[in-house]
Amino acid sequence: MKQQLMEMLENRKDEIIQIRRHLHENPELSFKEEKTAQYILDFYKDKDVEIQSNVGNGFGIIVTIKGGKPGKTIALRADFDALPILEETGLPFKSKNEGVMHACGHDGHTAYLLILADCLIQLKDEIPGNIKIIHQHAEEVPPGGAKSIVDSGVLDDVENIFGIHLLPMNPAGVVGYHKGYSMAGRSYLKVGIQGVGGHGSSPDKANDAIVAGAYFVTAVQTIISRRLNPFDMGVITIGSFDGKGTFNVIMDRVELEGDIRYMSEETKEIIGKELHRIAGGIEAEFGVQCDLTFAPDYPPLYNNPEMTDLVRTSLEGANDPDIKEVIEYPMMSPSDDIAYYLEKIPGCYFYIGCTPKGVEKPYFNHNPKFDIDEDALIVAAKSVGYVVCGYFGLE
Amino acid sequence: MKQQLMEMLENRKDEIIQIRRHLHENPELSFKEEKTAQYILDFYKDKDVEIQSNVGNGFGIIVTIKGGKPGKTIALRADFDALPILEETGLPFKSKNEGVMHACGHDGHTAYLLILADCLIQLKDEIPGNIKIIHQHAEEVPPGGAKSIVDSGVLDDVENIFGIHLLPMNPAGVVGYHKGYSMAGRSYLKVGIQGVGGHGSSPDKANDAIVAGAYFVTAVQTIISRRLNPFDMGVITIGSFDGKGTFNVIMDRVELEGDIRYMSEETKEIIGKELHRIAGGIEAEFGVQCDLTFAPDYPPLYNNPEMTDLVRTSLEGANDPDIKEVIEYPMMSPSDDIAYYLEKIPGCYFYIGCTPKGVEKPYFNHNPKFDIDEDALIVAAKSVGYVVCGYFGLE
Amino acid sequence: MKQQLMEMLENRKDEIIQIRRHLHENPELSFKEEKTAQYILDFYKDKDVEIQSNVGNGFGIIVTIKGGKPGKTIALRADFDALPILEETGLPFKSKNEGVMHACGHDGHTAYLLILADCLIQLKDEIPGNIKIIHQHAEEVPPGGAKSIVDSGVLDDVENIFGIHLLPMNPAGVVGYHKGYSMAGRSYLKVGIQGVGGHGSSPDKANDAIVAGAYFVTAVQTIISRRLNPFDMGVITIGSFDGKGTFNVIMDRVELEGDIRYMSEETKEIIGKELHRIAGGIEAEFGVQCDLTFAPDYPPLYNNPEMTDLVRTSLEGANDPDIKEVIEYPMMSPSDDIAYYLEKIPGCYFYIGCTPKGVEKPYFNHNPKFDIDEDALIVAAKSVGYVVCGYFGLE
Amino acid sequence: MKQQLMEMLENRKDEIIQIRRHLHENPELSFKEEKTAQYILDFYKDKDVEIQSNVGNGFGIIVTIKGGKPGKTIALRADFDALPILEETGLPFKSKNEGVMHACGHDGHTAYLLILADCLIQLKDEIPGNIKIIHQHAEEVPPGGAKSIVDSGVLDDVENIFGIHLLPMNPAGVVGYHKGYSMAGRSYLKVGIQGVGGHGSSPDKANDAIVAGAYFVTAVQTIISRRLNPFDMGVITIGSFDGKGTFNVIMDRVELEGDIRYMSEETKEIIGKELHRIAGGIEAEFGVQCDLTFAPDYPPLYNNPEMTDLVRTSLEGANDPDIKEVIEYPMMSPSDDIAYYLEKIPGCYFYIGCTPKGVEKPYFNHNPKFDIDEDALIVAAKSVGYVVCGYFGLE
Repeated sequence: MKQQLMEMLENRKDEIIQIRRHLHENPELSFKEEKTAQYILDFYKDKDVEIQSNVGNGFGIIVTIKGGKPGKTIALRADFDALPILEETGLPFKSKNEGVMHACGHDGHTAYLLILADCLIQLKDEIPGNIKIIHQHAEEVPPGGAKSIVDSGVLDDVENIFGIHLLPMNPAGVVGYHKGYSMAGRSYLKVGIQGVGGHGSSPDKANDAIVAGAYFVTAVQTIISRRLNPFDMGVITIGSFDGKGTFNVIMDRVELEGDIRYMSEETKEIIGKELHRIAGGIEAEFGVQCDLTFAPDYPPLYNNPEMTDLVRTSLEGANDPDIKEVIEYPMMSPSDDIAYYLEKIPGCYFYIGCTPKGVEKPYFNHNPKFDIDEDALIVAAKSVGYVVCGYFGLE
Repeated sequence: MKQQLMEMLENRKDEIIQIRRHLHENPELSFKEEKTAQYILDFYKDKDVEIQSNVGNGFGIIVTIKGGKPGKTIALRADFDALPILEETGLPFKSKNEGVMHACGHDGHTAYLLILADCLIQLKDEIPGNIKIIHQHAEEVPPGGAKSIVDSGVLDDVENIFGIHLLPMNPAGVVGYHKGYSMAGRSYLKVGIQGVGGHGSSPDKANDAIVAGAYFVTAVQTIISRRLNPFDMGVITIGSFDGKGTFNVIMDRVELEGDIRYMSEETKEIIGKELHRIAGGIEAEFGVQCDLTFAPDYPPLYNNPEMTDLVRTSLEGANDPDIKEVIEYPMMSPSDDIAYYLEKIPGCYFYIGCTPKGVEKPYFNHNPKFDIDEDALIVAAKSVGYVVCGYFGLE
Repeated sequence: MKQQLMEMLENRKDEIIQIRRHLHENPELSFKEEKTAQYILDFYKDKDVEIQSNVGNGFGIIVTIKGGKPGKTIALRADFDALPILEETGLPFKSKNEGVMHACGHDGHTAYLLILADCLIQLKDEIPGNIKIIHQHAEEVPPGGAKSIVDSGVLDDVENIFGIHLLPMNPAGVVGYHKGYSMAGRSYLKVGIQGVGGHGSSPDKANDAIVAGAYFVTAVQTIISRRLNPFDMGVITIGSFDGKGTFNVIMDRVELEGDIRYMSEETKEIIGKELHRIAGGIEAEFGVQCDLTFAPDYPPLYNNPEMTDLVRTSLEGANDPDIKEVIEYPMMSPSDDIAYYLEKIPGCYFYIGCTPKGVEKPYFNHNPKFDIDEDALIVAAKSVGYVVCGYFGLE
Repeated sequence: MKQQLMEMLENRKDEIIQIRRHLHENPELSFKEEKTAQYILDFYKDKDVEIQSNVGNGFGIIVTIKGGKPGKTIALRADFDALPILEETGLPFKSKNEGVMHACGHDGHTAYLLILADCLIQLKDEIPGNIKIIHQHAEEVPPGGAKSIVDSGVLDDVENIFGIHLLPMNPAGVVGYHKGYSMAGRSYLKVGIQGVGGHGSSPDKANDAIVAGAYFVTAVQTIISRRLNPFDMGVITIGSFDGKGTFNVIMDRVELEGDIRYMSEETKEIIGKELHRIAGGIEAEFGVQCDLTFAPDYPPLYNNPEMTDLVRTSLEGANDPDIKEVIEYPMMSPSDDIAYYLEKIPGCYFYIGCTPKGVEKPYFNHNPKFDIDEDALIVAAKSVGYVVCGYFGLE
């Protein structure tokens, strides 16, 4: 069946590109992807699948392909939301929705998966198991769509999950993987430090919130430098120190906000605990009140080693001219809410190279000039196809 | 002559109050005291004095009373500007100029000095010297009017200078003095710290201005704690830490503003030098750029010991029932631009108690409910009168 | 009687000097002044006074002179211990007790007071009250002798107390005074910071006491810079940071010691409270254990205003050629345990100039080359004599 | 030949253990391994090899085995020095040299390599290339023996190098590897901070070295927290803050020492540059003098990917019951001076499990109770043997 699937995909290469361009021209923001969802639903109309719409906290869609033979259930996921970015690519099919842009490749993710799903539907009698196609809304804006889909229970019967991301670090044809923790988890930090205001000439009659805030910032550095295992990744950025006041008035309150990154739940726990500890210390030390919010966001993305090996071996053994190289990627600091599925369901999220041809320094995801080599779309479709075949042992 | 002067003043007590109320009802902001100045000029019209108007950088007025006998020239100063405060006193003669208020007693200062000047004009034949009456504009807003009047040269022949301030720390009848440095000098601080912005997850590719700013604030504490003579007064308040940004973006720039207080030029020099030193240190330490502005404002107010003794002994020896007590005041942290005159001309600035009768916790100067006991006005007039008599040896 | 007393003192000027030289040659360390005490006791033998020896926690001596008429009881105090300093003056009567030196003028204090006491004993019938002569041991080493003498109760009937210190800031003939808080109080600080040791390459498995100690030091700076009234004197010196260890082993413990200075009990209270607060903050912030000892030592020395005025007016009115000038001194940072008496008994401690003749930059107290102009001794005797006469209204 | 070699090794398993016990009983400190070196030289006497002794800065020995056929030259390295540790194992063959102990497994390293070398000598006619056996002195004490051997030039013709370390993280039979940077590099830090001493009550007349030192320590935390790529490993431990002084005297000088760890030369460069930057900043900020020494020690250990793959595949393909598992190890923070060879010569340093049988929590290297399962010795000998065979393509 593998060979048959690949031929079907090759024949529909142009169709994938057309769908991607249509989506690119009509981007919608996270949680507002009404027309995109309708487009997807229309695609599956009259096909022999079970469709669930409005899954989770938005326009999530689950398409279940029941195989002809009994077996495991796996899931394939693609996200379909766009970003609040004013497109600067100058492409003929650039965004018609000014200020909104598919600058992260989700148009391509959805396009390849629609066609791959269609092919799998046609071949489903040979599949010893079931495949749930997840068309996910709202990946870009925490809390995202993934968590709500997991929480909805529609994936409770799924045993493994796969997904890809288009990344322009390598040209089309290169597929990357990383075993274990692969993309950073992140948390949001907010600290309000309440002192007592007063006249600048009488510090003893006030309690200076700026001074307490400054000592907080210096103390926080020790979490990264002294509390983490030096081999573990962790970042605490205080991105905002809101203490604008009048030069001769002692500030009564400052508010700090920050971004936390880590590659493991353990690191998250340590950073959270230590931030609370330091906030408590600053309270005791300076007699201020510190209200600290540490709000975990996407977890670190964990690629199950066995599933990652499956991806690697399926692709290394493909002998397909479209898949030129399968390489190990390093850990990376961006976050993706597919991490929520991978927390519950062993799986692998891997990377499809898409540097536009002839470009040496490509614009990265989220840049207004982000663009892809559309040849990467067939690589994505085939790669996930090989993984499905490898998973179900289909030759 | 002394007795005669005091009787004249007593007879005009109500008139002082009327003038004060008129001024209170018609306050004008610093540098905009056009009508107030005209009112003062009208008062002196047809009197046998020399009048200079528009002195300095605003509506300053110098009235020269030439004594009948040769001798020294002294100056008496009262300020006449009001504050941008919405009056909340509920007085029948409250401000008609909404949002502007005589909340610092300058209405009283001007009122007593007009009448005292008029009496001295009438008695001038007996005075062995000359008296320059300074009606000063713009005391409240740096750089103030005083410096410009000094710079104009109109006081170059003045040998000593006196002035008073109404302060509600004590009831009417109490006069306070302090020898030597008496009120704080102040400077303005601004530091722009320029780093390099970047994504919150990649601190190594940016240069965090918030972190550099925080270390600046902690280092600045050592100027007060380790660089000043512990017996010297000094304050550095960072009143503004303008670093509001986005939680997950490393800040490229923060701006700090501050207020510096001191009781001597030496302390000012040390603080200024050390602030520059620390800014340079932070630059070297963190690779940021620090643009530091240290702008000296009013100097510390220095009361000449001899002139202060003259004030004390003149008042202690008055045996006047209106002047009930002459007491030593501590050094105080507010600033007054009479300090500019006192830098050049030995003199004494002293304090006239004015707590409203029956009030235990009076509202202080600059409070929207600031009020005075108008009995203090005759105390002011007589006190300065006694000092003039004492100075010229008039019994 | 005043005139008579002064003549008697003048006649014994040489004797004062002889006694001073004898004491200078035979200095004894604090709490070990056995021979000095015996010398003093021998001096009073057979005189018509009541003598108490071994008063307090050492060799303290109280000599009570009962006046011929009823009245108040006052005390005059001089200290008699020496310092562990190797004398470098080269004087013919330099210390015979190598390594011990009267480098603080206590030899002179004792010498003048012995002769003054003897004269007062002879004139006691005219005195309307009683005089307790305090020859005090152990001024130099906390907790000193003063506190124990106060605690012994022997001064419970004393209404006022006086004493002097020889200071080479001015030549003999100049007497200085300061009203109110005049010399610094001091406290001793010790902080043990206990973390957890470990290998230098694994900070996460240890808890670095050096890092916690460093943040403690930086936080402590804010006590002086932000917690004290800027007009109040306060110093916190961390004189010892005992953290010597091995470069690649994380320190488990550091010990800090420090010296605290202040001019008022209120400042002491604030500093003590804030040090405890910061120690608690560091504990919370870094998870270390901080054992903080804040041990108050000599209190700030407070000169009762009325008694200080008595000293000033008694000396200003003396018209004595030996007392050339009576001037106000600034507050000073040294400490003296006479402060313990003055805490309980209103009194005045004042200063006797003693710069050696012809010397421009004299060596100060505690210097191995410290020396005095012996003419200052008669000034001391007469000054205290004038104060006694003034106090009892003796003309 | 592979099979033959393995059989020879198995037959000499007991001999390896005997040699290891002899060396364990007779440990010698780094640079003082005279008898150990003689023992090794005696072992090779009369064998058909070329021997170089006293190589490098100590008792280093190079034994060259010339193969019967032309080909590449590789090196195998074992270290032979012991540690200044008082043994607490209670083994029958425990150290006879009290206070010196083979607590890091070098006895085992040397024992296996002697027998492996002997076997290879016997089989040398079949080897298409040459093998240099490095018996290295002084691994434990920087600058170590490795660098000097590299610098001596005796390895200039070596194309690849291999070595192993006994580590009790896993039982005998488990072999671990890590590709790329694998063990930490380290540097030594010393900073002398020179201020100006003075009396504790007069901070303005001194320049407090403890305060400057404390701010240095807090600033240094930002190197790890803000200057490194968060995925890179780096540690700065200030292990010594030598500032012991007198509580009431301001310290004129403190000396700090520290240990730096990193996994790449780039990280070392960044840390070194930033430490100098901060030292310069503290100088500017506090007006002290900072003498900073940053002395790089062993470099990070880099395992060539190709050679590491060779090790992995040679062992995975061995099908030898003694080699039960070949697993990937994480990066580790210890350092080893084999890193100096690997800097110049592509190679691989890998790990031989040796947890004593029945022990759950083994004592680690450098512990006075460190012990090994002697079955690990034949695993070491065979593993390196397989690598040699794999390298030269010997079946």
